[in-house]
Amino acid sequence: MNRNIIIYMLGWIMNIEALFMMLPVLTAAVYKENIGFIYLGVAVVCGLLGVACTRKKPKTKMFFAREGFVTVSLGWIVLSFFGCMPFVISGEIPHIIDAMFEIVSGFTTTGSSIVPKVEDLSKASLMWRSFSHWIGGMGVLVFILAILPMAGDYDMHIMRAESPGPSVGKLVPKIRITAKLLYIIYFCITVATAVFLLIGKMPVFDTICMSLGAAGTGGFACRNSGQAGYTVYQQAVLSIAMILFGINFNVYYLLLIRKPKEAFKCEEMRGYLAIILIAVVLITVNIRSMFPSLFLAAHHALFQVASIITTTGYSTVDFDKWPEFSKFILVMLMFSGACAGSTGGGMKVSRLVIMLKTVKKELLSYLHPRTVRKVKFNGRIVEHEVIRGINVYMIAYAFVLMFSVLIISIDNFDFTSNFTAVVATLNNIGPGLNIVGPTGNFSMYSNLSKIVMIFDMLAGRLELFPMLLLINPYTWKEIKIRKNKKIRKRAIAYET
Amino acid sequence: MNRNIIIYMLGWIMNIEALFMMLPVLTAAVYKENIGFIYLGVAVVCGLLGVACTRKKPKTKMFFAREGFVTVSLGWIVLSFFGCMPFVISGEIPHIIDAMFEIVSGFTTTGSSIVPKVEDLSKASLMWRSFSHWIGGMGVLVFILAILPMAGDYDMHIMRAESPGPSVGKLVPKIRITAKLLYIIYFCITVATAVFLLIGKMPVFDTICMSLGAAGTGGFACRNSGQAGYTVYQQAVLSIAMILFGINFNVYYLLLIRKPKEAFKCEEMRGYLAIILIAVVLITVNIRSMFPSLFLAAHHALFQVASIITTTGYSTVDFDKWPEFSKFILVMLMFSGACAGSTGGGMKVSRLVIMLKTVKKELLSYLHPRTVRKVKFNGRIVEHEVIRGINVYMIAYAFVLMFSVLIISIDNFDFTSNFTAVVATLNNIGPGLNIVGPTGNFSMYSNLSKIVMIFDMLAGRLELFPMLLLINPYTWKEIKIRKNKKIRKRAIAYET
Repeated sequence: MNRNIIIYMLGWIMNIEALFMMLPVLTAAVYKENIGFIYLGVAVVCGLLGVACTRKKPKTKMFFAREGFVTVSLGWIVLSFFGCMPFVISGEIPHIIDAMFEIVSGFTTTGSSIVPKVEDLSKASLMWRSFSHWIGGMGVLVFILAILPMAGDYDMHIMRAESPGPSVGKLVPKIRITAKLLYIIYFCITVATAVFLLIGKMPVFDTICMSLGAAGTGGFACRNSGQAGYTVYQQAVLSIAMILFGINFNVYYLLLIRKPKEAFKCEEMRGYLAIILIAVVLITVNIRSMFPSLFLAAHHALFQVASIITTTGYSTVDFDKWPEFSKFILVMLMFSGACAGSTGGGMKVSRLVIMLKTVKKELLSYLHPRTVRKVKFNGRIVEHEVIRGINVYMIAYAFVLMFSVLIISIDNFDFTSNFTAVVATLNNIGPGLNIVGPTGNFSMYSNLSKIVMIFDMLAGRLELFPMLLLINPYTWKEIKIRKNKKIRKRAIAYET
Repeated sequence: MNRNIIIYMLGWIMNIEALFMMLPVLTAAVYKENIGFIYLGVAVVCGLLGVACTRKKPKTKMFFAREGFVTVSLGWIVLSFFGCMPFVISGEIPHIIDAMFEIVSGFTTTGSSIVPKVEDLSKASLMWRSFSHWIGGMGVLVFILAILPMAGDYDMHIMRAESPGPSVGKLVPKIRITAKLLYIIYFCITVATAVFLLIGKMPVFDTICMSLGAAGTGGFACRNSGQAGYTVYQQAVLSIAMILFGINFNVYYLLLIRKPKEAFKCEEMRGYLAIILIAVVLITVNIRSMFPSLFLAAHHALFQVASIITTTGYSTVDFDKWPEFSKFILVMLMFSGACAGSTGGGMKVSRLVIMLKTVKKELLSYLHPRTVRKVKFNGRIVEHEVIRGINVYMIAYAFVLMFSVLIISIDNFDFTSNFTAVVATLNNIGPGLNIVGPTGNFSMYSNLSKIVMIFDMLAGRLELFPMLLLINPYTWKEIKIRKNKKIRKRAIAYET
């Protein structure tokens, strides 16, 4: 394990975080809040540590998949640790596990909160929470790749570990330019969302928070009423924005280089939009009688469907009061998630489509056993390695889900709450049902349960393996072994 | 599709069912119940139809996997159709969907019931319900294979379609002798269970019903109180019997041919017993305060764990009142199920162990990407085909589970009930939680939901693919196409 390069990358994460913390400092200055000094102090400490770690470039360029995974998982933990410090020091969220839960929920774009009334928080902290969604949405390491000129092929391993989806889509052959393009697209759609919200006369502060949250498919609110207090137009803008941020960013790149035909051929996007359409129609029919007009029923169905499938977690109504059929459709959408290569979480539509195709292939193979069949996606044959990866992901996913529900069951809340709490954190959605429903929050769970859910949020955002690798004792044995130079040399010879 | 051989096999199923129905006829004679004539009448009709279908042997021996699957799935539907007729005709369960639910629950060894008070049923019907568990436990087609001397290699395809587990374990090279051996072992342990129950002074009628149910890992009771009214000794005998019937029958075969060392090496059995031990210890600690002594807490924990992991569904206490932690352990055991090659349902321990090993392999491959690793089970390398089969099974399982919960959600019962109702039927367990808990039953669900659960019970018992193939439109297109002789010839040439 190449520890020097990992420390070097962690240093860059601290540098960037110090820079990003200037936004809450600025917010505090505008609203004349004293908490600004705390944000400034944390930023300075964070930046100094970062500079210390990045003072000299590491010599050995050895960087394999394992280094990528460890860098990303440790990076996110470091990011969250410094990110939650202002909450703890200011006393807004005094307990460190609560504060950690809140900021991990922010960076992983989950949006589950332990704060009962968000309006009690300072404007600076509200801004920092929403901004953490935006940072985590596209990934902080992808941001570093975009701005940091470095030699070596380690960037692919980092990109693979931090970007969601069954396979990494490079827009262009160079990772650095891909990362830059992704952030440019991301920035532009965020600004567009804000403009449309401002046209609808949303206050500036709310506009910034809501746009950042929708862009990262986060879900933190800046009002106690969530999104219920906004006008129908404002809610509709958010619905559309959420859906757009759930689409594979490849599509926008194809549109950018004027290949609209290829863009609309994207099988994952078609599947994603089809699922949204079906879900909205079914739910609208099911909840029609609860609203004064068909339009309003469809409007709220669309908002909630868009919010859940993109794993944002905004809500305009308390869907916990909807009939079971509609509620279970939302639970299914929690699993499905948005497109790979978007900022959304969950299992991703492409995985689902490929999985369905493998089942169909299996059934056909019983009817015609001698015919050789291949699973195709977007017109191309899906490689065996990708299918294997999806299967292992799915199995690991099921085990993490089950084991997490088991541990938080110790708190003795009801099954629906426990199950949907884990589903909502593991898929980075935000609200679940019952006590963790849209009007509830996660504060009543014990510290042990909160730690499990912090792990689940990180595991969900990083697609399981970086976090599983981090808690795997073999990984740490590996790091120890590599201290011994002789063994290290032998290991390198062995692996190449 | 070779329709003649399918009809021939269905005929044999009807013959055997007519024969098996003599047990309730006999029971009715002993207890002087008029319903005996109805059982006799149904048996005669069933037998006559069977003789008509088996009058002449089919000429073409063409029999592929698809014929195996269709034979098994249609066979189980035919079996259930005639099996539920006495309930409908006698008026004990007047509605055909309810009656079908009850008998499918019997044959698939589920044990979910729509009868609120079982003591209202006649002794003959109680006996038939429990006997259906025994017939379904090992499989009616396996029984036919054991007694029917036929040429051709179709027997393997039938065995594969009806026997549970990721791969078919042939005890000896000849399928027919394997089938015979399985039934002999099955019969002997059933008799042994009955003897131990009789020693504990259980009434003869109860003894027969309980032994048949435990052997098939069914779960129908013959008392309104379930198994709560029996003595601690009787309950302990049932606990041990259930655990024994959940072990892979290969182990008994190895013991029979005096290879105890090899028998105890069986990795699946070790995993299965380890899971039971861990679950019992955790639950005992968790429920200790609810019982007067540690012994009783452990006793009831063992009974419920044995009942759920083997997917039997007997219960001595209302575990719906246990703390969430214990309840969720039971839900996890519902998924796990017993060993492959036993009479238990669920996903099977061997599948779980192999799946866990693939995840471990994946993690290690990130640490040492150049090392080639193979998943081993029972000391042998697991073939790629088996792993692929397990993955596809798991995916199909998740889709069937989700889709079933969605449809029964229309009835608007709570999520816990809906979710555990589907888990309990799909894994052939019996009781779930809340309204379908040990003291509840399935009668309040709508007909649509009952049909979905009938499908789930059959799909669970036959391990999904035979039933999925049956509802696949391609299969029926296939049957139509094959009517045309020219195309048929071409198709045969194409496949060989």
